[in-house]
Amino acid sequence: MKVRRVGAAGEHDDADERGTIVTPSAELPPLGIEERAALSRIGERWREPRDPDDLPVDPTLGRSGRAPRPTRFGRFAPIEMFTVEEPGELVASEPAHLPGSRAGRLLSRARRTLFGPPLSSASVLYERMRKLVALPVLSSDLLSSVAYGPEALVSVLVLAGSAALGLSLPLAALLVVLMIAVGLSYRQTIPAYPHGAGSYIVAGDNLGRTPGLAAAAGLMLDYVLTVSVSVAAGVHAVTSAVPGLTPVTVPLGVLVIAVLLAGNLRGVRTAGNLFVLPTYAFVVAVLAVLVVGYARAAGRGFAPVSPPPVPAAEGLGLLLVLRAFSSGAVSMTGIEAVSNAVPAFRPTEWRNARTTLGWMVAMLVTLFAGLVGLIHLDGLVPRPGETLLSQLGRVTFPTGPWYAFLQATTALILLLAANTAFNDFPRLLFFMARDGHTPRRFLHMGDRLAFSNGLVALSVTAGVVFVAFGGHTERLIPLYAVGVFLAFTLSQAGMVVHWRRHRGPGWHRRLALNAVGATLSALVLITAAVAKFSEGAWVVVVAVPLLVLLFRRIHRHYATLHRALALQPPTPSGPAASAEREELPQEVRHLVVVPVARLNRASLRALAYAASLGQPTLAVHIAPEEVEADRFREQWQAWGDHLRLETIVSPYRAVIGPLAHYLEALHTTRPELTLTVIVPEVVLRRRWHRPLHSRVEQRLRAALRALPGVVVTTVPVHVAE
Amino acid sequence: MKVRRVGAAGEHDDADERGTIVTPSAELPPLGIEERAALSRIGERWREPRDPDDLPVDPTLGRSGRAPRPTRFGRFAPIEMFTVEEPGELVASEPAHLPGSRAGRLLSRARRTLFGPPLSSASVLYERMRKLVALPVLSSDLLSSVAYGPEALVSVLVLAGSAALGLSLPLAALLVVLMIAVGLSYRQTIPAYPHGAGSYIVAGDNLGRTPGLAAAAGLMLDYVLTVSVSVAAGVHAVTSAVPGLTPVTVPLGVLVIAVLLAGNLRGVRTAGNLFVLPTYAFVVAVLAVLVVGYARAAGRGFAPVSPPPVPAAEGLGLLLVLRAFSSGAVSMTGIEAVSNAVPAFRPTEWRNARTTLGWMVAMLVTLFAGLVGLIHLDGLVPRPGETLLSQLGRVTFPTGPWYAFLQATTALILLLAANTAFNDFPRLLFFMARDGHTPRRFLHMGDRLAFSNGLVALSVTAGVVFVAFGGHTERLIPLYAVGVFLAFTLSQAGMVVHWRRHRGPGWHRRLALNAVGATLSALVLITAAVAKFSEGAWVVVVAVPLLVLLFRRIHRHYATLHRALALQPPTPSGPAASAEREELPQEVRHLVVVPVARLNRASLRALAYAASLGQPTLAVHIAPEEVEADRFREQWQAWGDHLRLETIVSPYRAVIGPLAHYLEALHTTRPELTLTVIVPEVVLRRRWHRPLHSRVEQRLRAALRALPGVVVTTVPVHVAE
Repeated sequence: MKVRRVGAAGEHDDADERGTIVTPSAELPPLGIEERAALSRIGERWREPRDPDDLPVDPTLGRSGRAPRPTRFGRFAPIEMFTVEEPGELVASEPAHLPGSRAGRLLSRARRTLFGPPLSSASVLYERMRKLVALPVLSSDLLSSVAYGPEALVSVLVLAGSAALGLSLPLAALLVVLMIAVGLSYRQTIPAYPHGAGSYIVAGDNLGRTPGLAAAAGLMLDYVLTVSVSVAAGVHAVTSAVPGLTPVTVPLGVLVIAVLLAGNLRGVRTAGNLFVLPTYAFVVAVLAVLVVGYARAAGRGFAPVSPPPVPAAEGLGLLLVLRAFSSGAVSMTGIEAVSNAVPAFRPTEWRNARTTLGWMVAMLVTLFAGLVGLIHLDGLVPRPGETLLSQLGRVTFPTGPWYAFLQATTALILLLAANTAFNDFPRLLFFMARDGHTPRRFLHMGDRLAFSNGLVALSVTAGVVFVAFGGHTERLIPLYAVGVFLAFTLSQAGMVVHWRRHRGPGWHRRLALNAVGATLSALVLITAAVAKFSEGAWVVVVAVPLLVLLFRRIHRHYATLHRALALQPPTPSGPAASAEREELPQEVRHLVVVPVARLNRASLRALAYAASLGQPTLAVHIAPEEVEADRFREQWQAWGDHLRLETIVSPYRAVIGPLAHYLEALHTTRPELTLTVIVPEVVLRRRWHRPLHSRVEQRLRAALRALPGVVVTTVPVHVAE
Repeated sequence: MKVRRVGAAGEHDDADERGTIVTPSAELPPLGIEERAALSRIGERWREPRDPDDLPVDPTLGRSGRAPRPTRFGRFAPIEMFTVEEPGELVASEPAHLPGSRAGRLLSRARRTLFGPPLSSASVLYERMRKLVALPVLSSDLLSSVAYGPEALVSVLVLAGSAALGLSLPLAALLVVLMIAVGLSYRQTIPAYPHGAGSYIVAGDNLGRTPGLAAAAGLMLDYVLTVSVSVAAGVHAVTSAVPGLTPVTVPLGVLVIAVLLAGNLRGVRTAGNLFVLPTYAFVVAVLAVLVVGYARAAGRGFAPVSPPPVPAAEGLGLLLVLRAFSSGAVSMTGIEAVSNAVPAFRPTEWRNARTTLGWMVAMLVTLFAGLVGLIHLDGLVPRPGETLLSQLGRVTFPTGPWYAFLQATTALILLLAANTAFNDFPRLLFFMARDGHTPRRFLHMGDRLAFSNGLVALSVTAGVVFVAFGGHTERLIPLYAVGVFLAFTLSQAGMVVHWRRHRGPGWHRRLALNAVGATLSALVLITAAVAKFSEGAWVVVVAVPLLVLLFRRIHRHYATLHRALALQPPTPSGPAASAEREELPQEVRHLVVVPVARLNRASLRALAYAASLGQPTLAVHIAPEEVEADRFREQWQAWGDHLRLETIVSPYRAVIGPLAHYLEALHTTRPELTLTVIVPEVVLRRRWHRPLHSRVEQRLRAALRALPGVVVTTVPVHVAE
């Protein structure tokens, strides 16, 4: 595997960024062309009221490339935290990220111990995988579903009694057809979207925003459920081997999710080597079961062992068969992984990716069909405490370490499959956030270059689902198929539109193939949604539209905000009509207002600060009674009456309300004024002292937030104790 | 009852204010003499850097005494909310207190409906009571304890079996002696402290701060327990009459506390008439029981009915007798009420108060002794579901409405007794807050002129205690006596010191009398603390020192803060060494720093605002990568490079930490500079939009709070949607 570092200057251009490349600069997108033009026009009209003096400090801190050095007490002096790279540009060193407070530093240190030291933006890795590595990395999710897919199929059939179990073979055959069709369909997506073809992007590009969001919603549910189901199945594989652990299923699963979260917060990337061994080992273990099993079956002339008699709980109706079919279809989850990851292959990317997908589907078909057939031949039925794969292992390898090997690799691959969701979910949120469909914070890369917010969101949601369902795989599966096949269907349907629009060579054939894939996926989708509606699929049916609505509302908010804040060409000269429209210094008209409760060092400092700005200044005192107002005015005279004082008697003893309304009244009389309210704030060092004070400053700031054109300035006075 | 309004100008002088008069201006105490002098000296040196222009607005809003008028839509225009009283002074009308936000106005309206419209500071009432009104108002707490005192005594004795019940008579006699001694002792306190003689003030004046605080802590516990015990006993009186209500004892009690809180938040003052009837009715009801009961006993020659045999649960030891004695002593709680309320009497205040106290003690002795005797004669023993007083009522009035009358008046007087705590607890907190021993917020009078914060504190604490003890009177009583008698003892002991110091005529006799009172109270205190230590009195024994410690810590904090903020004479001329020492405008040296994340309307407005101040200005951009830093600098050039820009590359993508450390570094290089950080803030109208934004402004403000000399200015941009 080669690793390419993308360094300082434009190795990737903007077009690339619309693809699947993630960058820490996504939080600060460049200006659009119109905004650029407006910016220059505004800049031309900028007049400063007077020449600003030279700066009284050296903004580069007089640093010239010296490395930061800690002081004797282990803290870095703030000046030491910055180095000069080029004129006008400082680089913050790592200590500059530590918070100033002692509690904050302790917390940071604990985080570093747990998750490792922060990683520089320059360390974003773009991995290029060769096929033999890509295969295990990308197929762990898909192949792992073989561990629970056949069981899901048989579990439904057995409800109609042992006699119905024979239906597993034709259903499996149907599923194999489906796998091949969807596989071929995705095979075509890869060369069409060589920059990566997530369902969100393909559906959004070709079908419009809402289908794209619906595919994303389906995928998000899929990822959450992948974590829940894989962890549940992994834990189940462990408890099948060690039944003593059964009572702690739920805490065990939560622990696994927490470990996955911690590992991913550390920024453990899709390090190929981690995946290679367990995936191949799992394939080997299952193949061994198949070979030995079929050899034994051949020994008895492929005569099926008759299953233990199970009484029918339901009649064998069409609905039951459909339910069994759509349950078995969960074996296909993860098939889309390759198409998302095309840029991660070595050149020629799409060709390698397509080959890998072919191998994957072939392996899937082999393992899935083989397992269903062997289960039928050995006459196995699902038992509460043990997975079917585990039973098969015990039957096939009554002695020896092979059974343990099978269970261990199963557990491992299921956990790795959960990990793929940890890779893909935050990336999906990132792409959606870039388009303004999810909160902006999902653009932020944490100090380990992981999308921490997305990881936490995934873990919390998956953990809640896991606990709510008591850690039982089978109960989660009904929720599962719907979301996955929604994304499949929309992605394939998007490809149909794509071919119609682009009409490359052989587009008819390609369109037909994708149409078949889309149709089959849609059939499974509808089957799953209808057949399992009451079992829990209704949750997905309800959740997807709600999520789409939510994403659209979020997008609308960001769009409105962007319009409101976008730079516009300046209006013709003259003072601005409203205080908040001012973009030029010469348009700002000041009135400084200082609320003074009593005369002490804090308020005198606020008054001095206000007067030093050299703008018209008004002091305001709110008195609870006439007596107090007179007393205060008298003190003001004693001070020298240096500033205009207005006392407001508030006979109902409120302070914030009358002050806010007074400022609003001032604003009403002269809307073009910018009112600067200068509030002295006593900063206490100890947290337990805070309840002793009424936090007037905070409440005042909150009350003034809503007022237009009111700037709030906090002048702090720090008290040592 | 006459009501005297204390209006605008000094009808009460400062000396009075140290007494028991409450005033809304207590939150803003006048300056001390030294601070006044320092203020003038500072004022003399005040030089403004340039003449401030005339104010661009009329600070009196051009109002000339017009009354506020609502607009067509029912909201008052802000200008209409103020009226001019004298030059330079506005008076805020009631609408000016309504919050600006819609939710806030709705809440205000709900509060008004519940608690009534706000009351003006001019409405502080000073009630003057004549004796016949004062007696019920002040004695409801004392007389109500007769409803549970005898029962508390007998309940302990019966633990040693029916035989021990005979001891109730000599113990009652002892208690009567104690009542008379303490009564005489308090009788002397009244003329000595005609402005009101709360235990906190008397003990603090004469014994020092810690004993004063200990008395206050005891009283505070007493008030909390008065509410809990009285409500419990009142509810018990109800459930004795209507046993069906027994299961809802706890919710019923909590409801009663909530109603008391609501009533007191409305500012229902000690409206005498409310108290007159129930108190006298209760006295009449109990007297009727006594008269009829003793008449029947006389009919059988005062031969005691032998009580039902009760097996002894414990041996009849000294400890049991002491416990019984101290349990009975709770009948004396509330005896201090008159001495607190001397200024509320008609002139000559102290003489009328003293007479009233005499009547009260006489009534207490009559009722208490009579009840204990009658319980003995009728051979009653405590039963779980019914109070002794209720049993006595049933025996005395087997038929007719008298029994119901007795229970009803009992319940009523117990609730009124709880109400006295609602009067006294917040006042005590007010006096302590005035001395800096409790949080300042207890000085604030709510918009109904009630001490809302103190009322809420009392209700919450009493409610918690009531619920924690499951609403059972008898379990709370052990906690009760200790706090009360601690306050009695310290108050009487304080009087002993007082007489020794002031030596008026007959001071020897007075000193002796108070010494007797103090000694007897101390004996009960020790008895109660020792005998009931393990039953729950340990809570009080532990709580009082902890509370005293807490009060002292609070006082220390306020004292430190006051010293730190006190005005001091200016140091010799020259620029101040540290930014936060500046009290004169000519000493302030500015550097304006504008953090800019991206160029949009919000940040350009912040830059324009900064430049318009005409002070040296520096813009800072934090970039996650070199690429982004270059891109931003290029945009800055396109704008015109009007201000000095410093970009800081933060390779670990944090924003707040590096910015805070950079400002700290600037401050380190020039500590005398005042750094004004101008932060653009986008104000969103809808609350649900807030999670979509990272609240960088708030986090930045929090990080900068700790830095010395850093002023934070928030320039808002309001977004309509």
